[in-house]
Amino acid sequence: MKFTINREEFLKGIMNAGRVTQNKVDPILSNLKLDLFEDKLTITASNGTLTIVTSIPAISNEKENIRNITEGSTLVSGRILTEIIRRLEGNEVYFEVLDDSLAKIESDNSSFKIGAMRSEEYRDLDLSIDGIKVELKASELTDAVNQVAFCASEKSSRPILAAVNLECNSQVLTFTATDGARLGRKELAVTNTEMFSVNVPSKSLSEVIKTITNEDTVNLYISDKKVVFEFKDTILVTTLIFGDYPNVKNIIPRNFYYFLEVNANEFLKAIEMGAITSNERENVVKVIMEEGKVSITSKSQQNGSSDIRLDLFRYTGERLEMSFNCDFVSTAIRSLKCQDVLISFVGEMKPFTVTNNNDGSVIQLITPVRTY
Amino acid sequence: MKFTINREEFLKGIMNAGRVTQNKVDPILSNLKLDLFEDKLTITASNGTLTIVTSIPAISNEKENIRNITEGSTLVSGRILTEIIRRLEGNEVYFEVLDDSLAKIESDNSSFKIGAMRSEEYRDLDLSIDGIKVELKASELTDAVNQVAFCASEKSSRPILAAVNLECNSQVLTFTATDGARLGRKELAVTNTEMFSVNVPSKSLSEVIKTITNEDTVNLYISDKKVVFEFKDTILVTTLIFGDYPNVKNIIPRNFYYFLEVNANEFLKAIEMGAITSNERENVVKVIMEEGKVSITSKSQQNGSSDIRLDLFRYTGERLEMSFNCDFVSTAIRSLKCQDVLISFVGEMKPFTVTNNNDGSVIQLITPVRTY
Repeated sequence: MKFTINREEFLKGIMNAGRVTQNKVDPILSNLKLDLFEDKLTITASNGTLTIVTSIPAISNEKENIRNITEGSTLVSGRILTEIIRRLEGNEVYFEVLDDSLAKIESDNSSFKIGAMRSEEYRDLDLSIDGIKVELKASELTDAVNQVAFCASEKSSRPILAAVNLECNSQVLTFTATDGARLGRKELAVTNTEMFSVNVPSKSLSEVIKTITNEDTVNLYISDKKVVFEFKDTILVTTLIFGDYPNVKNIIPRNFYYFLEVNANEFLKAIEMGAITSNERENVVKVIMEEGKVSITSKSQQNGSSDIRLDLFRYTGERLEMSFNCDFVSTAIRSLKCQDVLISFVGEMKPFTVTNNNDGSVIQLITPVRTY
Repeated sequence: MKFTINREEFLKGIMNAGRVTQNKVDPILSNLKLDLFEDKLTITASNGTLTIVTSIPAISNEKENIRNITEGSTLVSGRILTEIIRRLEGNEVYFEVLDDSLAKIESDNSSFKIGAMRSEEYRDLDLSIDGIKVELKASELTDAVNQVAFCASEKSSRPILAAVNLECNSQVLTFTATDGARLGRKELAVTNTEMFSVNVPSKSLSEVIKTITNEDTVNLYISDKKVVFEFKDTILVTTLIFGDYPNVKNIIPRNFYYFLEVNANEFLKAIEMGAITSNERENVVKVIMEEGKVSITSKSQQNGSSDIRLDLFRYTGERLEMSFNCDFVSTAIRSLKCQDVLISFVGEMKPFTVTNNNDGSVIQLITPVRTY
């Protein structure tokens, strides 16, 4: 295997792929697999859960990316290869597998020999593109993941809560994530009529949206064992988390009796300021709402007490006090990315929702904290 | 004690001082001491080694900084006070000590009550300004510390190596620091004729230069037990490290037989590129020099081997190979901040110097590493 490649294209490819390598569970996955066949270089990387396969065509848009091609495959350390290609300064890089255990990399005045392995040593991965196809705008998928994925929990004793549930029903694709104390839900209109429900690792989704920042559309292929994300010269394949996702349909209240409409920025500043005197580990603030007056307060033996009055708000309902985790509410508000936020309450100690008045497709549900 | 203060001036003062608070050794030092007397607010903070005292005059440049003054003193948590003042939005802040255990802070719609202590609880500190006075340009002091302090070592079993030695002799003030494997030395011309030698904690010097970024001159007051740095409305006082500083005078070679002149940028890139394949923990590269050819190489079982040829250099001497810690040399070169660097060698396994051809006041000395 040998080739001469445009350094920038090569770097883009290995950096894109290199993000999902890992070294902890299985050392073989610290490598990138390079396959040079049929006039393209394919780079494969995996962390065991998420796999990325990205290709650099020898010629694209009449530009020659790769020349001097002798076909072949190899495995090389993702970290070392990236470090070398990143630091080299020439326009082109020459890569050659000398034997099954050594690869040579050259550019301008610099020459490296690094360890290589036979590509057969790599983990066997199911990368077939099959299942129900769902076409999404890249921006829609990104928004959905950003508005929901942070509610998933890696730390729970229930592994299923590390997933975002993707459920399709009546041409609506619903993203749901919860850690037990908060829940995020986002609905996207799709043309699909198939029904499915899969639990996608939240971390895989977060990686996927990092790779699609410049894309228009992404095709998802949903099957029982995996989800494939496909765009341009790249596919990402994630395994699923098996098990039934908790039934959260009845958790979201239907009727509310207290409504607080606030300016997102002012409210964020106020609760974060109010939280300064909260117990550091809990970060709990209390909002005291009555007609014409809303204030935020926190109190702890250690740090003192605060009292922050809101300027911009509309409150409808009887007097109500509500204590909550400041981080949960501020993350929820920020994820909505809107100017005005509606917070709707059922009553004391009942979960409340944080929503955007102009966009009913996303709901953030938060469980209050009991304070004494 | 109560006062109304310009928020920005207050924030600047407590942030400047707050950097040196600490909580680990002595919890009382996590506080800021506020003293409001004689038409100025004095803020004191200390980490036990370095103490900063900065003042905000009630009126400066015809601008009223503090009004509504009732004199007094108090201790409040540096972290909480800074967090509150940083997040408040009004132009002015009202501060009042309610009793010996509580202080009130108000601005616009926000009100806080935080814990306070009697200022008598604070640690007794010797903040008298006495000793030999040395006047330095702030930029000179900053350069000297930046070029030398990184050679000191917190980790050595010899506490004295955590110091920068300041020695005055024949109107030359010499800064020296060494960790045993490298040494930095900088000479400054001064008008003083007194002789002294003191060991100033390297960390204290690094903090001092962070506070003088906007100053013209700094006055140092050197005595047996402490060094005072004075400028404008601020003094910093550091304790010293006792003991004799190692005699390093004879370590710096007088005669050299091999000379490598390089472009700093190209050489930095080359050694950092060469180090990619070094053993990760050791980060050692070898420079192979002969007339007309200089190359950098490293080799490890784990990462492979490199061979980087230099383009821009002038080498005088017989063939020489020299292995060294890449970080030591790159830190030394960067500290010189010059375009061309001269590296002078005595011979194999002998310490070598890294210097700026146009500035003899600073020398970096580095011990090579034995490789097999």
